[in-house]
Amino acid sequence: MLFRQLFDEESFTYTYLFGCAETGQAVLLDPVLETMDRDLRVLQALNLRLAYTLETHIHADHVTSARKLKAQTGSRIAGPAMDALPCIDFGVAEDRPLTVGTITLRPLFTPGHTDTHHSYLLTEGDTQRVFTGDALLIDGCGRTDFQNGDSVTLYRSVHEKLFALPNETLIYPAHDYQQRHVSSIAQEKARNPRLGGKSMGEFQEIMANLKLPYPKKMGYAVPANQDCGKCPADLPETIRRLCDPSLQG
Amino acid sequence: MLFRQLFDEESFTYTYLFGCAETGQAVLLDPVLETMDRDLRVLQALNLRLAYTLETHIHADHVTSARKLKAQTGSRIAGPAMDALPCIDFGVAEDRPLTVGTITLRPLFTPGHTDTHHSYLLTEGDTQRVFTGDALLIDGCGRTDFQNGDSVTLYRSVHEKLFALPNETLIYPAHDYQQRHVSSIAQEKARNPRLGGKSMGEFQEIMANLKLPYPKKMGYAVPANQDCGKCPADLPETIRRLCDPSLQG
Repeated sequence: MLFRQLFDEESFTYTYLFGCAETGQAVLLDPVLETMDRDLRVLQALNLRLAYTLETHIHADHVTSARKLKAQTGSRIAGPAMDALPCIDFGVAEDRPLTVGTITLRPLFTPGHTDTHHSYLLTEGDTQRVFTGDALLIDGCGRTDFQNGDSVTLYRSVHEKLFALPNETLIYPAHDYQQRHVSSIAQEKARNPRLGGKSMGEFQEIMANLKLPYPKKMGYAVPANQDCGKCPADLPETIRRLCDPSLQG
Repeated sequence: MLFRQLFDEESFTYTYLFGCAETGQAVLLDPVLETMDRDLRVLQALNLRLAYTLETHIHADHVTSARKLKAQTGSRIAGPAMDALPCIDFGVAEDRPLTVGTITLRPLFTPGHTDTHHSYLLTEGDTQRVFTGDALLIDGCGRTDFQNGDSVTLYRSVHEKLFALPNETLIYPAHDYQQRHVSSIAQEKARNPRLGGKSMGEFQEIMANLKLPYPKKMGYAVPANQDCGKCPADLPETIRRLCDPSLQG
């Protein structure tokens, strides 16, 4: 398996590339519109053909490149089945993993940041990696104050689905704002300031008092991502130019 | 391959366990005298037989359990060949890796913290892990003010041997004092405050001004480790009782 951790400096998003050495097929997890050309160059350099894009959730902080990559490469679009998006080619669920060549991404339903958020578990030999999206970040977690987010639900997702994994399981988040790249289940259990050793009540209080600003792209990113990266036609002109013109409805 | 990251709370040392699923053989990297019974319990729980202990370097902050493990389990003692310790059964070097079943630990000569320090590279599929001992820590590095340490040498080791590895290579250090467990080459290049993006001159100045206290165990740990964990006979009584009584000369 080939594995690359790619970064978008504007939205602090990690896009993950998985390549099957046997079939030459690849998957991109949480690809970002602005870095699509970079992702295509990496695929080409590794001699890989993009088979699928996959999302952890409907993002509010960036627009996915899923639709544009499909148009350019013929890749198929995967995401949580429970989103029931008409633009999705393959809906994943806990009993419906995405398998491409020798790569199997096993979905774990981890709602709380959004109500349909999934993490993905990848096993290579004895090495387990979990791609936690915005459910669990290094020393943090995704916010729970919009998109049907809920702190009680997120606390349960992290403790029941993620902290239940073996200690050595590697954590790869969807974002990091301080250039951290990787953690482990043992590390987050020990020192995550919101979730490590905290009670549900303590977590609820922390999350209720974050006082975060509204994501600047949310107004158009959420509807765009609900259409796999196609910006809606009724955007105001000031926002419209931020969306990919070729993808506008 | 089975892999476990074990921790000694007294010296903040990580001991790493590697197990070959095919032969049932195991290697312990940098095992600590005080946690020997815990390590034996983990080996037993995984149904593994200890084939080798291995050291990154002559430690100053803890005594190795290599000799006592050899006496109890029949394991062999491995360490850097250039230490030329009579107690070592197998001396490793860059052209002389340690192979146990399907596990190969490939030595990288990384002096600077001590003058014979080695890191070890382990490959499982496309996953590379490097065990960096005290050469490179998460957001830090080992001190260079004793045991023939040298900051110019350490700077070269990190840049020429470790930062030359692929970005996704996982870093597992010999210590962490803040419960961090794992990093990556990309992460340390980006944000290690001593080595990431710093010039050799800047690094020399940082290392010359650390003003660290003398390690409390150094007086007996270094001579004990030069005999693979056997404390010398001429220790003062106050220190002598800290050493394992059954191993005293």
